[in-house]
Amino acid sequence: MFRMSEQHERISILGLGAMGRALAGALLAAGREVTVWNRTPGKAGDLVARGAREVSSVEGAIDASDLTVACLLDDASVRETLAPVVQKLADRTLVNLTSGSVRQARELDRWLKEYGVRFLAGGIMAVPPTVGTEGAFILYSGARDLFDRVAPALSPLGRPHWVGEDPGFAALYDMAALSGMYGIGAGVDHAVRMLHAEGGDVETFKREVLRPWLEQMLPIFVAGADVSDTVPDEYNPEMQAVGLENILAASGEAGVPADLAGHLRASLWRMRRAVATAG
Amino acid sequence: MFRMSEQHERISILGLGAMGRALAGALLAAGREVTVWNRTPGKAGDLVARGAREVSSVEGAIDASDLTVACLLDDASVRETLAPVVQKLADRTLVNLTSGSVRQARELDRWLKEYGVRFLAGGIMAVPPTVGTEGAFILYSGARDLFDRVAPALSPLGRPHWVGEDPGFAALYDMAALSGMYGIGAGVDHAVRMLHAEGGDVETFKREVLRPWLEQMLPIFVAGADVSDTVPDEYNPEMQAVGLENILAASGEAGVPADLAGHLRASLWRMRRAVATAG
Repeated sequence: MFRMSEQHERISILGLGAMGRALAGALLAAGREVTVWNRTPGKAGDLVARGAREVSSVEGAIDASDLTVACLLDDASVRETLAPVVQKLADRTLVNLTSGSVRQARELDRWLKEYGVRFLAGGIMAVPPTVGTEGAFILYSGARDLFDRVAPALSPLGRPHWVGEDPGFAALYDMAALSGMYGIGAGVDHAVRMLHAEGGDVETFKREVLRPWLEQMLPIFVAGADVSDTVPDEYNPEMQAVGLENILAASGEAGVPADLAGHLRASLWRMRRAVATAG
Repeated sequence: MFRMSEQHERISILGLGAMGRALAGALLAAGREVTVWNRTPGKAGDLVARGAREVSSVEGAIDASDLTVACLLDDASVRETLAPVVQKLADRTLVNLTSGSVRQARELDRWLKEYGVRFLAGGIMAVPPTVGTEGAFILYSGARDLFDRVAPALSPLGRPHWVGEDPGFAALYDMAALSGMYGIGAGVDHAVRMLHAEGGDVETFKREVLRPWLEQMLPIFVAGADVSDTVPDEYNPEMQAVGLENILAASGEAGVPADLAGHLRASLWRMRRAVATAG
């Protein structure tokens, strides 16, 4: 499906945290020539034994490949790491897979373009253990033709998915999807604590009730997620508000810390607003 | 799999809200003899045309069947509806599928048993449109032998699932699972609003990013949900806390109301506590 472009078989990875190591590992597994760099050395683990070349300078990493991928702690680390070597990146390609904001991605894009760097912003829709596995995908934003040239080289990380010319969109889609994920996290954590507080069987609950129920509801809630303040009539926001108040009361009575019920308060706020909008 | 017990082919439904109507419809579709009652008449819709018998008194509903199912607004409605006729329920079976709290279910159980009522508490793991469909299930708690006798009659509503002798457990498991569901609701709603606020394509985002990402993460988060304050090392709570602060900041900058970000604050609270516990 993707045509390999020869010049991108050599890829350098800046940053060897858990995610950077996972990226390098997936590229090695796919037969790419991989060069790795980390600010503090000794983080390459078994990557060198698996064929990666470790270099001690960012320049060395940029020189070794035509495609450099940054996966650092945050936007400040990207700026610090690239500032001394940005002229070396002229006419080369940099893909930034470091987490950051929409604004940071747009500013990084402006700055790198001043130096003639071909830049793509990215967002990794995977956790380190699922990089390169079925279901993992990587969001990219920036020039479409650059994406088309780079996507084959990076496809071993996860299905490449372009979300727009705006360099901030990969971060936007990434952050929004993470927000959805943290909703699941808050909900399931609270559910398990309520069950535990009342003496229920947590493992049975997770396996026989929580997971099948959430798998049934997930597509319905995604399809119904809306930017308006209305709620479809069949979901009767007034009754849902009563139900949410009951769960909040029961949670408090069971001794679950109120800080953990933020997903319920957010939902209640939305239902009350829907009732007010309809009324 | 389930053996039909003859006496339970006749079932009465008290309450014809959207859920009560869905229950009656699923039982009719499965060939049960269904009697329906609602406090205010005229709510039976097409149920009568489909074979249901509508009666004007609760006594009439109880008399018509050996199994009565209550699906009313709340626990107070159940008490009000049953108080004048509770002696008629002696040696008969009542299943309560009305939403309520753990405590309410336990108290209802005590009260009904004083009158010799065979009582099962229930919780419907479906929304009205999915009652009786693949994936729908109904939680029951109370005496196991009573569940075994009643389950075949009610199986058309959704797979019957017994969660324990404690009559409060159906409400507990139901409420905890709903809490998980509202986590999804809060997360996806917030995600879609962030995207909209920054000018992204909401429908493409939902279909190509949000849903596949959440389907990938759901089983991981359910499996990892824990009652302790720790977070598995591979999920680095310190980095997750930074990520959550970034999303909260971005959400505020985008103008999404802070009340809608409760799932993020709950997750952040948990990550900070995990960091403190580990440190």
